Amino acid sequence: MRSLDFYFDFISPFGYLASLRVDALAHKYDRECRWHSMLLGISVLKVMGMKPLPTYPLKGPYLKRDMERYMRRHGITINRQGKPASPLPAGRCFHWLKGQDEARAQSFARAALHAYWQEAADIGVPDIVADIAARFGADRDAALAAMATGGEGDKALRAAVDLSMEKGVFGSPTFIVDEDEPFFGVEKMELLEEWLSSGGW
Amino acid sequence: MRSLDFYFDFISPFGYLASLRVDALAHKYDRECRWHSMLLGISVLKVMGMKPLPTYPLKGPYLKRDMERYMRRHGITINRQGKPASPLPAGRCFHWLKGQDEARAQSFARAALHAYWQEAADIGVPDIVADIAARFGADRDAALAAMATGGEGDKALRAAVDLSMEKGVFGSPTFIVDEDEPFFGVEKMELLEEWLSSGGW
Repeated sequence: MRSLDFYFDFISPFGYLASLRVDALAHKYDRECRWHSMLLGISVLKVMGMKPLPTYPLKGPYLKRDMERYMRRHGITINRQGKPASPLPAGRCFHWLKGQDEARAQSFARAALHAYWQEAADIGVPDIVADIAARFGADRDAALAAMATGGEGDKALRAAVDLSMEKGVFGSPTFIVDEDEPFFGVEKMELLEEWLSSGGW
Repeated sequence: MRSLDFYFDFISPFGYLASLRVDALAHKYDRECRWHSMLLGISVLKVMGMKPLPTYPLKGPYLKRDMERYMRRHGITINRQGKPASPLPAGRCFHWLKGQDEARAQSFARAALHAYWQEAADIGVPDIVADIAARFGADRDAALAAMATGGEGDKALRAAVDLSMEKGVFGSPTFIVDEDEPFFGVEKMELLEEWLSSGGW
C-alpha cells in the first residue's frame, strides 16, 4: 500500500492543525498514513543553526498572523496559554507505543495533541502523558519508565528524530508521499492533495 | 483603488516565478499592482540574523526541489547558471525609475528579470542594466549615475528596503493586499486568490 508519512512536533501549532486533516486526506487517496513525531526546536533547528521561529524578527510576527488566519479560515480555535511544554514526554511515549502498535500510537498522539491544544494540559509532565496513554490500554508504570531519560521511548525518539533528518524533514508539519515526495507546511496541504489526485507533475 | 503590493528580490527565483503571475491576479481582482524590489540576502536576512536560505542544511535542498516542482507544475523553465548576480544595480535602477514613473519601472523590472532568468544576462553589471533601462526610454548616462553608490537609485533602494521591513516583509515574494494583509511565498498565490475572491476570512 502506498504511504503518506506525516511528521509533526507535539508543541508545533501548525503540526497540530495539520493533524486534524491528514488522516482524511490519506484515506481519500488510499494511502497508509504513518505518523512521526519529531523535535523541531530541540533537535532540527539546532542542526540547521536556527533559533525558534517565533523569535525571528519580521518572520515571527508573520507566522503568528498566518496561524490565526488559517484557524479563522478553517473554523478552528485553540485553547492553550503560557510557555510551550517540553515535547519530550509525549514524543517518547508516542515512539514507545509506536514500537508496539502504530494505530494505538496514533490514537495516543491525537489525544495528546487535543489535550495540549484544546484542554491546556501540560504534556511536559510525564504523569499527565501516562494518563493519556493509559486511556488507550498502555500500562501506566511501563509508560513512565519508557519516558524516563535513557528509557525505551527516549531511545526510540532519538532514533526517529535522526531518521527524520536523514529523510530531509526540517519543519512541522512535513508530509512525504510514497516515501519520496516531500511537502512542508500546513498550507501545502491543498498542493499535496493536488499531487495525490493527479499523480504528480 | 485597492492595491496589491508585490515585493521581490531580482535574484530570488521564487520572486521571479511570482512576477510572471502577479499582474494578471491583480487585474482580475481590480487591484492596483505596485512592484517593490527588496534585498533579501543583503539586508533582510541580515536583520533577521539568517544566512542565505539555500545554505541551510535540510531546508536548502527542499527549497531547490520545491522550486523545480513548481516549475514543472506551471510549465516554466529557467535558463541561468553560475553564481547569483548582485541585485544592487537592478534594484537601484528600478527604484530610480519608480520615482519617475511606476509603469516604466515595472516594465524595466519585467525585462531585467527576464534577462537574468531566461537569457542568463549578468544584471550585476550596471552597463547591462542601463541597456535594459534605455529600452524603456531612460537616459543611459543618467541611469548609470543613479546606480552608482550614493546615487539617486542607491538612496531610493535603501529607503525602500527599510520601508519594506517596516511593513514586515521578510521574504521574496511577499504580497500585501489593500495595505494590510500579507502573504509570503509563491505557493501562497492560490490562497491569496481565495482571499481576493472571497473578501477574506
